[in-house]
Amino acid sequence: MMKTYRFCIIGVGLIGGSLGLALKKFKLAREVIGFGRNPARLKEAKRLGAIDGFSLSLKEVLRDVDIVVIATPVAKILDFAKEVFREAREGSIVIDVGSTKSLIVRQIEKIKPKGIGFVGCHPLAGSEKSGVRYASPNLFLHAPCIITKTNKTDKDALRTVSSIWEKLGSKVIIMEPAEHDRVLSFISHLPHMLSVALVNTVSSKYLKLASGGFRDMTRIASSEPVMWHDICLTNRINILKAIDIYKRCLEEIAHSIKTSDSSSLLKTLKFAKDKRDILLKENL
Amino acid sequence: MMKTYRFCIIGVGLIGGSLGLALKKFKLAREVIGFGRNPARLKEAKRLGAIDGFSLSLKEVLRDVDIVVIATPVAKILDFAKEVFREAREGSIVIDVGSTKSLIVRQIEKIKPKGIGFVGCHPLAGSEKSGVRYASPNLFLHAPCIITKTNKTDKDALRTVSSIWEKLGSKVIIMEPAEHDRVLSFISHLPHMLSVALVNTVSSKYLKLASGGFRDMTRIASSEPVMWHDICLTNRINILKAIDIYKRCLEEIAHSIKTSDSSSLLKTLKFAKDKRDILLKENL
Repeated sequence: MMKTYRFCIIGVGLIGGSLGLALKKFKLAREVIGFGRNPARLKEAKRLGAIDGFSLSLKEVLRDVDIVVIATPVAKILDFAKEVFREAREGSIVIDVGSTKSLIVRQIEKIKPKGIGFVGCHPLAGSEKSGVRYASPNLFLHAPCIITKTNKTDKDALRTVSSIWEKLGSKVIIMEPAEHDRVLSFISHLPHMLSVALVNTVSSKYLKLASGGFRDMTRIASSEPVMWHDICLTNRINILKAIDIYKRCLEEIAHSIKTSDSSSLLKTLKFAKDKRDILLKENL
Repeated sequence: MMKTYRFCIIGVGLIGGSLGLALKKFKLAREVIGFGRNPARLKEAKRLGAIDGFSLSLKEVLRDVDIVVIATPVAKILDFAKEVFREAREGSIVIDVGSTKSLIVRQIEKIKPKGIGFVGCHPLAGSEKSGVRYASPNLFLHAPCIITKTNKTDKDALRTVSSIWEKLGSKVIIMEPAEHDRVLSFISHLPHMLSVALVNTVSSKYLKLASGGFRDMTRIASSEPVMWHDICLTNRINILKAIDIYKRCLEEIAHSIKTSDSSSLLKTLKFAKDKRDILLKENL
């Protein structure tokens, strides 16, 4: 029989809510209790079946919980971790699902008491939508989930947490927090900034002519600003480096166009096509 | 009864092929003849029903044709127009569907004989895929189609061509070629260059972690390089201007991140979200 746990999810938005639904769908949870500051949001999460119940007292909740998931915006994770560590029972595991990892994992590992496990996680799933009403039990299916490992990570906790994500359908990848932040700055944070800059470049009066390409490229600019503000400021150096490299690539294209350098322009376009086509061919 | 025409489509790729299918679906064509340099491609177009027949002799084809559509890559449009003008019968109309308009329309209007109409068109439809096998009769449904008007445009020809695109389901917008190229540099050509630069920025080894946002933002980088090479070099000045404005918007974001300027960063993110959300709300 599959091992089951009692979960507490702090912050039942798109990710927290989807996790609740998934844990129940894949029968990993004996119980999922929600916790948060906003009773209306918790009630909605319960109505949607993302949690079995909720409480406004963390102390009360954590008495019987095996695994605590902190699924709040990045800037609030540390404060919640502090509260959780005060109340969590010996042997329980705390995970966060924040989009940046170096700073959070370092801060949390500093304050983590002995006897409680901590594993930083980042399911690469989500959308430009936010809120539990968009939650889905299948959000993590086939999606990568990065789990961080440091010299302070408890091996048993890491194994337990990896196995849970795998059972939810995720492709678990283990890496150091610093590597996570470097990789994500390129494949997630940079694209986001580019999308935002594109929307801000284009005059509103042209928007009615936006076709598929423009819509696709700007979809993520509709994401929650506070979440992205937090991501930017907790992964500053990597994002700035990625923007710098990007600016050079864009400058190269602009230079080819400026000098009408056909062969260099064609080479750049072809290089991009061949590289991007890999995502289709290998069905990665 | 709806007026019908005999069409010749030069270049039966994604756009030319879709136009053939659409003209037949919406019963605007008495006959659609394909013309091109590659018999295999023309045979495929016939097999897929995009054309009724084809010929390798333009002279033979144009004897009975009312409307000639030049749907080749931008760089070849002028040469085909020259050939067409030598053979087209008095009273016929020539249109092109190229993605840039100023240069093409200017060049074609210079060589156009009296008695033949010419109207520059640009259906804002298409995809990163190319070739007649991806053609669809519904490609133009609800999509904007920009039709250019200059002081040399024949009014009857303009009316006829507008009415045809409308019957195919397009939202016709009439503008000057220069305005078309300015608008498109922002909503189509700039996004394309940004997508290409993003693919070229990111290391191949990170691609396996690409999630929805990255995939959406780089989809159009898989487009046909030759087509985009032509677009870039026939709309150079506008694209370079758009890239310049874009670089300033990106620099503004980078500066906010660099200086950890929370309020300015949040303002920029929120501005983009509010603007992009219009595309959802108004269902434009």
